[in-house]
Amino acid sequence: MTAKPDWIGVDWGTTHLRIWVVDAAGAILCHRTSDKGMGRLTAEEFEPVLVDLIGGVLPAAGALPVIVCGMAGSRQGWAEAAYRDTPCPPPVLQDARRVKTKDTRIDVHILPGIKQNAPPDVIRGEETQIAGFLADNPGFAGTLCLPGTHTKWARIRSGTIEWFRTFMTGEMFALLAAQSVLRHTVSADDIDGKAFRAAIEETAGHPEHLTAFLFGIRAAGLIADLSPGAARGRLSGLLIGAELAAMREHLGMGQVAVIGAGGVARAYVDALETLGVSAMLNDAEATTLKGLALARQHLSEPTQ
Amino acid sequence: MTAKPDWIGVDWGTTHLRIWVVDAAGAILCHRTSDKGMGRLTAEEFEPVLVDLIGGVLPAAGALPVIVCGMAGSRQGWAEAAYRDTPCPPPVLQDARRVKTKDTRIDVHILPGIKQNAPPDVIRGEETQIAGFLADNPGFAGTLCLPGTHTKWARIRSGTIEWFRTFMTGEMFALLAAQSVLRHTVSADDIDGKAFRAAIEETAGHPEHLTAFLFGIRAAGLIADLSPGAARGRLSGLLIGAELAAMREHLGMGQVAVIGAGGVARAYVDALETLGVSAMLNDAEATTLKGLALARQHLSEPTQ
Repeated sequence: MTAKPDWIGVDWGTTHLRIWVVDAAGAILCHRTSDKGMGRLTAEEFEPVLVDLIGGVLPAAGALPVIVCGMAGSRQGWAEAAYRDTPCPPPVLQDARRVKTKDTRIDVHILPGIKQNAPPDVIRGEETQIAGFLADNPGFAGTLCLPGTHTKWARIRSGTIEWFRTFMTGEMFALLAAQSVLRHTVSADDIDGKAFRAAIEETAGHPEHLTAFLFGIRAAGLIADLSPGAARGRLSGLLIGAELAAMREHLGMGQVAVIGAGGVARAYVDALETLGVSAMLNDAEATTLKGLALARQHLSEPTQ
Repeated sequence: MTAKPDWIGVDWGTTHLRIWVVDAAGAILCHRTSDKGMGRLTAEEFEPVLVDLIGGVLPAAGALPVIVCGMAGSRQGWAEAAYRDTPCPPPVLQDARRVKTKDTRIDVHILPGIKQNAPPDVIRGEETQIAGFLADNPGFAGTLCLPGTHTKWARIRSGTIEWFRTFMTGEMFALLAAQSVLRHTVSADDIDGKAFRAAIEETAGHPEHLTAFLFGIRAAGLIADLSPGAARGRLSGLLIGAELAAMREHLGMGQVAVIGAGGVARAYVDALETLGVSAMLNDAEATTLKGLALARQHLSEPTQ
């Protein structure tokens, strides 16, 4: 007997596209990734891109549920799924935008993002990770950190996203490392952990000096033989440390968890530990898929 | 009678080259600018570039003094003029690196920059502006601000540069405005002054939120109809306000002066005024030329 696809989960961000084909028991039958992110597509291109990638698994009859999160639901995406407002629980299937498709073998639902009016902020994609995280940790009360190009922090209580904040840390690291005067100094692939942690403490204590500390990396490369690995560690640590200074008042209130992947997620856990905060690390992809699966479950339930 | 060139002043930065041909009375006979900055030249190319631009004014016999400041004196420049160490007065002619040239009609002296070991920092070019400023304001005691791609702040007392600090504010503004996610939101040429001043107060009070406030510009563009001019004002104000937060403890101690040009210099004066600090504005080019002229004067004096 061949496993039968039950639904398809899609995380469609600005630069990436991740697809999981899942059976009724929750097993992943296949996983596809693509660089055809929202940023490269017009509204009309989303459906053919998706069908191209999953055409082989679609049923001959009936429509397979496709649950989408991320920037595909933005105004510049496939179809706009209007933001929900904080405070709110993570969006559920009932909040999703259903998309009419030419291909009748798919039944597409795009989950909305969340917006906050004061201070102004927006999320698209991470809310689904938060939903997945809360399914496993229903009593979580505290602060979630979701590292990335734009790192999100969210304050959670009683299953509700009370407040969130986005920091441009990842994008600034990339710009400064590749395109600023610092590029000459941080040309290593490795990161010196000791320099990273020292930098965390510097900007966590004196965030107002961030842009001066940053130039100091260049100066120390010129006059103090700062190694490229230490310079790269400092660059990362200075940016994350300043972010932790902003979040510090929240970090003492309840639990702290990081949802992320790879070196950047471990860097945040390491940074938090440097400040004496212990954080559990959760895998980003697994958490996203869990959040999409929750929406799929609701699709099977009778609507009121 | 035709005015006769007495000396040549050169401000040779990373991206620009400015040349003044001056007579014995201090009048500027001609002024040339070029984009042949240090960053585009190998060591061998400096002399021909200079001679190309000033060849017409060189004497048939004898050598015209050429006083150079800026990145031409860096290790990657024309010839290295070793840094002086803080605390120190601005470098004088005796500190300059004399350069052997093929063309015997010029006598080139490159003024050194200044370095500071803790915190590590370097200056090349601004020290000559400081020399020029102090010639006009010998009793100045307080803080100098020299805005630019890398804005410098220097604490001055009794003609001595006691301490200085460089902030990457200008370079970060350029990177964020042109290449980050904010580029969609700050696409104006004008800057909204009210938004600029409000942003100054926000990061001057809460510099730890800088990178979150920055993302907030994008979010406010999406959900709160922030205008491009207000967004650009916010971007500039947030970065400068964070810098002022770092300098705040110094701003209360003595006088404050800005040495700069154009909109960016006025923005710093405006930012300082927003925080209740009044600053006199000095023209950057005039101050540079004054500093170069001081070195020229010393060339005429008998050496000890």
